Amino acid sequence: MGKETFTDRLMDAIDEKHSILNVGLDPQFKRIPVQIREKARKAYGPTWQAIGHAYLRFNKEIIDTVEPYVISVKPQMAFYEAYSHWGVWAFQKTVQYAKDKGLVVIEDAKRGDGGDTAQAYADGHLGRVDFWGDDEETFTKMPSYDVDCMTIKAWIGQSMLDPFIEVVKEQGKGVFVVDKTSFIPNSVIEQKKTEDGITNWENLAHLVREWGKDTEGERGYRNMGVVIGATYPEEAETMRKILPNAWFLIPGYDTQGGGADDAVVGFNKDGYGGVVNSSRGIIFAYIKGRFQCDPKDFVEASRKAAEFARDDLNAALKQAGKRAW
Amino acid sequence: MGKETFTDRLMDAIDEKHSILNVGLDPQFKRIPVQIREKARKAYGPTWQAIGHAYLRFNKEIIDTVEPYVISVKPQMAFYEAYSHWGVWAFQKTVQYAKDKGLVVIEDAKRGDGGDTAQAYADGHLGRVDFWGDDEETFTKMPSYDVDCMTIKAWIGQSMLDPFIEVVKEQGKGVFVVDKTSFIPNSVIEQKKTEDGITNWENLAHLVREWGKDTEGERGYRNMGVVIGATYPEEAETMRKILPNAWFLIPGYDTQGGGADDAVVGFNKDGYGGVVNSSRGIIFAYIKGRFQCDPKDFVEASRKAAEFARDDLNAALKQAGKRAW
Repeated sequence: MGKETFTDRLMDAIDEKHSILNVGLDPQFKRIPVQIREKARKAYGPTWQAIGHAYLRFNKEIIDTVEPYVISVKPQMAFYEAYSHWGVWAFQKTVQYAKDKGLVVIEDAKRGDGGDTAQAYADGHLGRVDFWGDDEETFTKMPSYDVDCMTIKAWIGQSMLDPFIEVVKEQGKGVFVVDKTSFIPNSVIEQKKTEDGITNWENLAHLVREWGKDTEGERGYRNMGVVIGATYPEEAETMRKILPNAWFLIPGYDTQGGGADDAVVGFNKDGYGGVVNSSRGIIFAYIKGRFQCDPKDFVEASRKAAEFARDDLNAALKQAGKRAW
Repeated sequence: MGKETFTDRLMDAIDEKHSILNVGLDPQFKRIPVQIREKARKAYGPTWQAIGHAYLRFNKEIIDTVEPYVISVKPQMAFYEAYSHWGVWAFQKTVQYAKDKGLVVIEDAKRGDGGDTAQAYADGHLGRVDFWGDDEETFTKMPSYDVDCMTIKAWIGQSMLDPFIEVVKEQGKGVFVVDKTSFIPNSVIEQKKTEDGITNWENLAHLVREWGKDTEGERGYRNMGVVIGATYPEEAETMRKILPNAWFLIPGYDTQGGGADDAVVGFNKDGYGGVVNSSRGIIFAYIKGRFQCDPKDFVEASRKAAEFARDDLNAALKQAGKRAW
């Protein structure tokens, strides 16, 4: 696939920053520090637009402070689209800002559909959409969100995957297929055993193994990975056997109860293969936990939390014999 | 659950209009009639904003012409969000316009996540989100999209469903859980047999039966249904046995190859229980098929296509002994 695909950029970032940490940019209105909310209200009134601006301002400050400690950011689209078009506006501006800072952007959207609709998701989020041309008969292609990577769902199967496989291969983008999620209670469907004696999530992992063929970057890792929660470390070992050279996006570390040791179980011996997410534990560090402080100091709380999480994960990697740093 | 929940409004619309037809509002830029595209370009230049305005203008004309023949509209979010915040702007305005015309609005978004994120999807699309209050310490709740019903995905299970069950019960909204989809090739995961000898989609239907308890409206139908494609009529019979009083959202009629007879297989003997979708066959009727015509006459082509589909489906219902009209 040539140089500078998603996996290549991720590996370069890990090498450069000595980190496996991703920060989840999941703004929630009530938790935005009061001074940012009030500044937006003064500028735009008590409006949807003001919330969009508050989210963007908050994200920019978080990005600036955590940038040295994280390899990537993962904005969760649900929190933006909940505030309709102004929320989506903030999402777009956040993506652009993070990319300009050299961060890899993983959109958490968990989209899943089929046919033309799957194509619209692939083109709209990762690829390029039909746009105006010179006259009424001609069209061009333009990127819309242009994220580096996104999460998708595979219940619908081949009809969903086809356009994503194409955009991964042709445009060097990445996807994570939602497989074994971090939530408790455990998903009945994910855990259900099929007649061949393995679980649904294992069946799905085998499908991802097929779908991800020929998506390898320069150093052998694939541009199609899976989401697997830090809260299920045993499953991470099984997943690694099925998908030796896929990236794992690992939510559930810290606030959902997964420890650093659990989070690194699925990493390969070479120290690659996983991106560990922390959202609230970093972006809302000022509200509770060991870095709790006055809202006016939220930036420093988030910086400390990111530094702590990076070091916590690196120590676990070192303990597991998978990294020298 | 009292009066005027999703199912009640749907049944009233069926009784009033003698129709079981839903029109899918799935705009695609290249297929928007040239005069609408060029008018938007003249007003706003070759911009994203112009595309948002073109989508809204197109949808309004479609809604005005098909309104007598359809009970509901189903905008597919993928096609709007592909054009970033201006696309989402057009989505919101379309929802409002359709509601003002008395149509039931079913958002096709197929969202699925867990915990706080599931809550954000439920609140953002169906319910109400945190909004500005009188001062920096107080908050109010505001609806954002405020659709009547949306499609969701259940791979993640209970952690996804909980906030949706709450918003369905407390705010009279509806949800359709994506179960047996219309796409060909068939989904490997949906069809996989589990160790208890039934398929995954059947297992999911049994879960929906549990999740949908106590969501009945005035006439006994539930506010939690399933998506089941018209392309799999045998499965519709099985689905009806598992879910006797659930609504089926039925895609795949017409352009995906499902006939009217297939589409009505899952209906109950009382003539209720299903909403049949047609998207491209109606909104882009001017481009191909029996109503193909000059783009300037697209409105009349769509009107004829909607009338034809309504009558086609009613004839199939009558043939099956499920309706007198």
